[in-house]
Amino acid sequence: METLKIALDAMGGDKAPACDVEGAVKALKEHDNLKMILLGDETAIKSELAKFSGYPEDRLEVVHCSEKIEMAEPPVAAISSKQDSSIVKGMRMVRKGEADAFISAGSTGAILVGGQVLVGRLKGVERPPLGALMPTEKGMTLLIDCGANVDARPSWLLQFAEMGSIYVENVLKIRRPRVAIVNIGAEEEKGNTLVKETFPLLKEDKAINFIGSIEARDIPAGGADVIVTDAFSGNLILKMYEGTANTIYRVAKKGLKSSVLGMIGGAIAMKPLKKSLRAFDSKKYGGAPLLGLRGLVVKAHGSSDGDAIAVAINQCLDFYRQDINGKIKERMEAEAEHMKELKRMELRKGSAE
Amino acid sequence: METLKIALDAMGGDKAPACDVEGAVKALKEHDNLKMILLGDETAIKSELAKFSGYPEDRLEVVHCSEKIEMAEPPVAAISSKQDSSIVKGMRMVRKGEADAFISAGSTGAILVGGQVLVGRLKGVERPPLGALMPTEKGMTLLIDCGANVDARPSWLLQFAEMGSIYVENVLKIRRPRVAIVNIGAEEEKGNTLVKETFPLLKEDKAINFIGSIEARDIPAGGADVIVTDAFSGNLILKMYEGTANTIYRVAKKGLKSSVLGMIGGAIAMKPLKKSLRAFDSKKYGGAPLLGLRGLVVKAHGSSDGDAIAVAINQCLDFYRQDINGKIKERMEAEAEHMKELKRMELRKGSAE
Repeated sequence: METLKIALDAMGGDKAPACDVEGAVKALKEHDNLKMILLGDETAIKSELAKFSGYPEDRLEVVHCSEKIEMAEPPVAAISSKQDSSIVKGMRMVRKGEADAFISAGSTGAILVGGQVLVGRLKGVERPPLGALMPTEKGMTLLIDCGANVDARPSWLLQFAEMGSIYVENVLKIRRPRVAIVNIGAEEEKGNTLVKETFPLLKEDKAINFIGSIEARDIPAGGADVIVTDAFSGNLILKMYEGTANTIYRVAKKGLKSSVLGMIGGAIAMKPLKKSLRAFDSKKYGGAPLLGLRGLVVKAHGSSDGDAIAVAINQCLDFYRQDINGKIKERMEAEAEHMKELKRMELRKGSAE
Repeated sequence: METLKIALDAMGGDKAPACDVEGAVKALKEHDNLKMILLGDETAIKSELAKFSGYPEDRLEVVHCSEKIEMAEPPVAAISSKQDSSIVKGMRMVRKGEADAFISAGSTGAILVGGQVLVGRLKGVERPPLGALMPTEKGMTLLIDCGANVDARPSWLLQFAEMGSIYVENVLKIRRPRVAIVNIGAEEEKGNTLVKETFPLLKEDKAINFIGSIEARDIPAGGADVIVTDAFSGNLILKMYEGTANTIYRVAKKGLKSSVLGMIGGAIAMKPLKKSLRAFDSKKYGGAPLLGLRGLVVKAHGSSDGDAIAVAINQCLDFYRQDINGKIKERMEAEAEHMKELKRMELRKGSAE
């Protein structure tokens, strides 16, 4: 098997570089055909690496970067000015083919801008979407777009649905994944202009298994495998999920602590409760893939630990082994062919009239 | 004090007419200056009424309606064809001044259309928004718009903020309520086109206490008192709140039931836990007001019981006692004056150049 080279931003994440180094070492021990490239402050990375032994050092490379893009920095300015940052250097390696994928738990804005500008889009892709893997009651769901394109167009959403389907089918191994569009009611005539215009495109698309609208209330229950929306709505969905869970947890904890019975009962029930809720821990499921680029870019959660980074690395390996980009390219070409055909038919119809 | 007349749709809600009749009787016992008008099937209403005694029968009127608008009916068609339905008749009573407010737990779509078409807008109001009262960790928040205007314009959102502020200040009794706009980041330059264009309008508006953007994750924690957004996003927020809470509850329950320790601990802790989470029960807080109309229209939750209906009736009484519509009218007139002044200044500036 061909050796895959994965570039990892060792400066990204709340626990960088420790989490990144730990994740890389873990993945190298697990996989033979993998080379890791750690980007960031060489001294800091090497002092973290010194804590580990027994890993294949020959398959780990450290590339020193003298700059760092901070979380709060305006993304466009950061990408264009910090040429020696881990994000810019990692993206350039993907562009040049020196790395097959780039993972970063750093600034989402910089990753989105860098993906478009430095890595570049696959031919035929209108806009690359960020897809988030959401844990639900029934397993994993891909919410796409959750960060990249806030004022989206119907044709973009159609491509998100197609790319998302390919990803879920091949990486999450769900056959004929159910694709739904986020809406405010189940009926076809409901929704805002974007949804109303996108709905018929999705319905006509034979390449996907479109099941119609999904209301937000059915998302946590696992009502679809690929959930298509614009990035503004996608962000609201993700953040409400997170915020509601956190608030319920805090209020419940306070309630239990307010009485002796609550404290006793809570202590007894804690273990089985935690076990059942662990399914919702998003760290177990890797990062958010930025799809439609010439190489894979994965945004890992800011709070990632070593295990989460290792999962994101596995995700990249799966992405390449299943040739997702080859499949996306094929689909986009078929779609372009289909659009041309439609135009030809319209022209012919026009001249016949 | 003047007697207020409140029309109540006795055919709306999952438990109609029982919940509506119970709520009306309860409110009549509590308030002297109140007259209730129950609209719906006379026989069904009277057979429910027969279960109660000791209430002021002279202040309760039953108006028979031979038709009923179903939940799934297309709203515009329903409103125009079912002239003898409780929703159409109740709205007309408000329009003619025969009732001061109308409450219904029926079809949201029909209530929104009926409000605009049958009751009509206050002068100066561009679009009437539906405001939902959301229970949060810190108390109540008004989410406005959560159902009426999906493709909104910046000037509409500005009015939603102003009307929402007046409502929250007078009905929820929160002084100088904190107004925030739903956004995908805290910075002013973030957001989609609608948010970017609305932000400066809100910032300039001296009539409200604008605190900037709110991210969805901070909504359940109670980060603002009036949360402004378009109806598509508002619906996503409300439904994600509901869906996430339901899913966590189901998964936690299953987790507890899966082990003996879980069952024992859960049973012991149930009472204090339920007590602390009761703050989130939306039924305690009345219905969703449709603001900016010539009379008040309140959409009660479909699952309302008698207590929830009684709370919605109290809400209407408060609305009138605080003269919310007088205050909204005043604000809209001041705003129109301000816009005129701005135009005059621009013209003068133009001719001076």
